[in-house]
Amino acid sequence: MPRLVDTPFDRHFGLEIVSTGEDQVQASVPVGDEIRQPVGLVHGGFYAALAESMTVAATRAALPGDKVVRAHSAQTSFLRPIVDGTVHASARARHRGRTTWVWEVEITDDHGRLCALVRMTIAVRDAPGEAATPAA
Amino acid sequence: MPRLVDTPFDRHFGLEIVSTGEDQVQASVPVGDEIRQPVGLVHGGFYAALAESMTVAATRAALPGDKVVRAHSAQTSFLRPIVDGTVHASARARHRGRTTWVWEVEITDDHGRLCALVRMTIAVRDAPGEAATPAA
Amino acid sequence: MPRLVDTPFDRHFGLEIVSTGEDQVQASVPVGDEIRQPVGLVHGGFYAALAESMTVAATRAALPGDKVVRAHSAQTSFLRPIVDGTVHASARARHRGRTTWVWEVEITDDHGRLCALVRMTIAVRDAPGEAATPAA
Amino acid sequence: MPRLVDTPFDRHFGLEIVSTGEDQVQASVPVGDEIRQPVGLVHGGFYAALAESMTVAATRAALPGDKVVRAHSAQTSFLRPIVDGTVHASARARHRGRTTWVWEVEITDDHGRLCALVRMTIAVRDAPGEAATPAA
Repeated sequence: MPRLVDTPFDRHFGLEIVSTGEDQVQASVPVGDEIRQPVGLVHGGFYAALAESMTVAATRAALPGDKVVRAHSAQTSFLRPIVDGTVHASARARHRGRTTWVWEVEITDDHGRLCALVRMTIAVRDAPGEAATPAA
Repeated sequence: MPRLVDTPFDRHFGLEIVSTGEDQVQASVPVGDEIRQPVGLVHGGFYAALAESMTVAATRAALPGDKVVRAHSAQTSFLRPIVDGTVHASARARHRGRTTWVWEVEITDDHGRLCALVRMTIAVRDAPGEAATPAA
Repeated sequence: MPRLVDTPFDRHFGLEIVSTGEDQVQASVPVGDEIRQPVGLVHGGFYAALAESMTVAATRAALPGDKVVRAHSAQTSFLRPIVDGTVHASARARHRGRTTWVWEVEITDDHGRLCALVRMTIAVRDAPGEAATPAA
Repeated sequence: MPRLVDTPFDRHFGLEIVSTGEDQVQASVPVGDEIRQPVGLVHGGFYAALAESMTVAATRAALPGDKVVRAHSAQTSFLRPIVDGTVHASARARHRGRTTWVWEVEITDDHGRLCALVRMTIAVRDAPGEAATPAA
């Protein structure tokens, strides 16, 4: 199971991993003012943050410890606003390559309606001497 | 000048608008643990959140009050990690259409190095009876 | 069934619609030099062209004649090269909104391996007086 | 100067490199039926094809011969249709990393109006034993 290190960023959002498999991970977050934009909708940037936290953690959990895992790019399409209830996110690995993993993340509301799509591309690199270098 | 309504989301991140013009807007955010991922880098989702807050606010400020402005999509490329100092964001409107605005946002670090690119597409709709309907 | 008007562009590529439903469409194209890049792989731009031709046609077929349908954006991830055989494309409508449709298109090779993912966003507008104006 | 190998794909489109620098490349293509969609606009897939041909060639030209260069992803936003005249494309390298280059390509018409934006991400890999493996 992906181990989500407890950070102020994730803790602020109340991120909770619901369940997970080898190439799937689900998460949910209750809607509160801390993830809403000024007009009351869940902030679009939150979907990207959620998708990255889930998929980076799941990719890291699936690889040996000598690999460095980083977000490479994210494409988010906003389809339907969420204003209350719970944000449900379900990620599926579509490509698990040597240097790149690609995840598709579906965001749904409490009625099961599709609200956003995020395609997360994760870069996988060898660890030694990489820590201080650019992700890409 | 875009008026950024003071919300828990933006306040959590310490977002500050530095300066702005009709089709440009700059913002900066000091790096702290609240925007870092577990391994100490600024969270990629934060760049998307920052880009959306800036460009939605700037688009809204430029249009009459009977228009509804919403994030439509975001594409973020992560080029170089930021670990401390200040996140600098500069957005430029590249297309100001009747139903869509497109902004390109550059994220740089304190040394002026390009660290991320975000292309934000904003949907513009007529307000009456739109508030409860999907953005797209 | 989406009616693919016979144009020099599509004819050049040998595009063939295999089957289709209300929110799904499949197509296939035999690999030849006309869709290869210099080093022998199928040209990435071809996947975007194929995805657009399929999804614009399918969206248009599903809507009344007073709607104008245009490509709004495309995000393509290249996962595995195709060098010969047949390019298989399968598109599924994920969002059918009033002003935007979003399709996800999977490109596979003859062995059923996922080779590219394309997310096509289609803009839907009212026809009268729109013909000469920008899509967005 | 990037050497564009003469292939049926590029020849079909009449692609012509106008000028180029170390991290910039321009190209132009006359509009004809071979790049138009059924309703007379330049096909959106053509912009992606053009952007890939230019930036893959320019990246390859800038690197030593033991590197393999491949399209990794493309994000295209369609802003304004082109129906005749010449398609002008101008690409600028925004990131030249060890494993990834990112180019931004602007497509304009004969009046200098911005018609499309393409962000091309190019993967750079070591050549030996790479030819038969996935791009990513």
